[in-house]
Amino acid sequence: MADSSWTSSAKSLKGVILDLCGVLYDSGEDGGTPIPGSVEAVKRLKASDLKLRFCTNETQASRDKFVAKLQKMGFDISVCEVFSPAPAAVAVLKDRGMRPHLLVYDGLLSEFESVDQTNPNCVVVGDAAGNFTYENLNDAFRVLIGLEKPVLFALGKGRYYKEADGLSLDVGPYMKALEYACDVEAEVIGKPSSAFFHSVLSDMGLQPHQVMMVGDDLVNDVGGAQLCGMTGLQVRTGKYRPSDQQHRSVKADGTVDDLAQAVDLLLGARAGPL
Amino acid sequence: MADSSWTSSAKSLKGVILDLCGVLYDSGEDGGTPIPGSVEAVKRLKASDLKLRFCTNETQASRDKFVAKLQKMGFDISVCEVFSPAPAAVAVLKDRGMRPHLLVYDGLLSEFESVDQTNPNCVVVGDAAGNFTYENLNDAFRVLIGLEKPVLFALGKGRYYKEADGLSLDVGPYMKALEYACDVEAEVIGKPSSAFFHSVLSDMGLQPHQVMMVGDDLVNDVGGAQLCGMTGLQVRTGKYRPSDQQHRSVKADGTVDDLAQAVDLLLGARAGPL
Repeated sequence: MADSSWTSSAKSLKGVILDLCGVLYDSGEDGGTPIPGSVEAVKRLKASDLKLRFCTNETQASRDKFVAKLQKMGFDISVCEVFSPAPAAVAVLKDRGMRPHLLVYDGLLSEFESVDQTNPNCVVVGDAAGNFTYENLNDAFRVLIGLEKPVLFALGKGRYYKEADGLSLDVGPYMKALEYACDVEAEVIGKPSSAFFHSVLSDMGLQPHQVMMVGDDLVNDVGGAQLCGMTGLQVRTGKYRPSDQQHRSVKADGTVDDLAQAVDLLLGARAGPL
Repeated sequence: MADSSWTSSAKSLKGVILDLCGVLYDSGEDGGTPIPGSVEAVKRLKASDLKLRFCTNETQASRDKFVAKLQKMGFDISVCEVFSPAPAAVAVLKDRGMRPHLLVYDGLLSEFESVDQTNPNCVVVGDAAGNFTYENLNDAFRVLIGLEKPVLFALGKGRYYKEADGLSLDVGPYMKALEYACDVEAEVIGKPSSAFFHSVLSDMGLQPHQVMMVGDDLVNDVGGAQLCGMTGLQVRTGKYRPSDQQHRSVKADGTVDDLAQAVDLLLGARAGPL
């Protein structure tokens, strides 16, 4: 069952941005498994005349390792096509001369190697899963509360993601914890930040109305893209929940079963009569 | 340096409520140490004609064990004089027929022994310090997100408290994390909830305007008491920070160095001419 009214603008599209986790694959203990049909769907998009980029809030590993994992699953994807929060954060930190205390996955630390981390004057929090111990969150809190003007960066603000054994807390709840503890508002780097989406659009050389974002996260993928002026399509895989369709403030331009169906409908509509 | 204008109403007071941690003692690895002059100050209040109660958001141990610790420090205090969130939560759970999943200190579990905890239909989060692992918070999150209508109770909502080696995260930030993850608002049991303060006033048999609350926490002690119609006095011990005096919405009726000075000024004013 797919609402296909969103395909009416299919012919005017010039590019597509895909979220990764929950759209291409489901994460899990073993690194994750491709969602059926998604490897082939990416191949079909690449063979089309649409420009393609990948935009993720993935912060569990450096971009190199992460892309290698996707290639091993069979995806035709390269590092320069993938936009993720850590490299964007490094650019912001250098630009503003800030020295971060990092609360992130061990696998992400290498992305920050070029940034001075002595005598920290800000905190960067990403998804950290098992690294979110009380002691580690308290250490980050003590850095922030000890600053005259606490500055907190969050690599995304997702509530939770789906793993093989169920839903798991993402970075957002921990960002909220530090915000409340220190009475600050975090600067979010990654989806749904418009600055992040615009950096992708700029790389594609396209205007927002020419691009469609496909994601499983109603607020961060769909809502963020729509705020930028893009079309936002939600897939019923990954963290999709039926209650998303009654969300207070975000309404997807369309909802499809999965990426394979999205590509089918999209390419079909582009091939059909005007 | 003490602003003593608050003593003008000293003669009309009939009772005093004291916060415990940060007013009577500082917590620490070894169970804590009394703040200088506080043992004597409690003794003087008890010898006066004022009614005295203790009101704490302490949830690290059962009330029995906690009071025994204070007695060992030299304080003249008994269990029936102490109001804490866990017994109040048990009353609410039973009243509403709710079965909690508990995320609290191990030492607090015995307080909930009389409550059915099978097949949970709500979560109770208290300060849990080292028990706030990613896994434990995720377990609580999964209970909540699996409920048709998630119900979250928080034993207090403090941001942080002071330990011997620095400030440490309290229950509030973790409450906020779960609120954000599940898009719910927690019901706070304990300070600054008016229902909690009113249960203390009712036990004292006094009206709010007849009672003064003394605490180190501007929002939960002072602000909560003021919302009930009590006088709120802040001590410069415990988690007091100079920036409290520029707080956006709460202004203490008075600020004193410590409990000893508060009792000196209070009893002095009551003994003086009208």
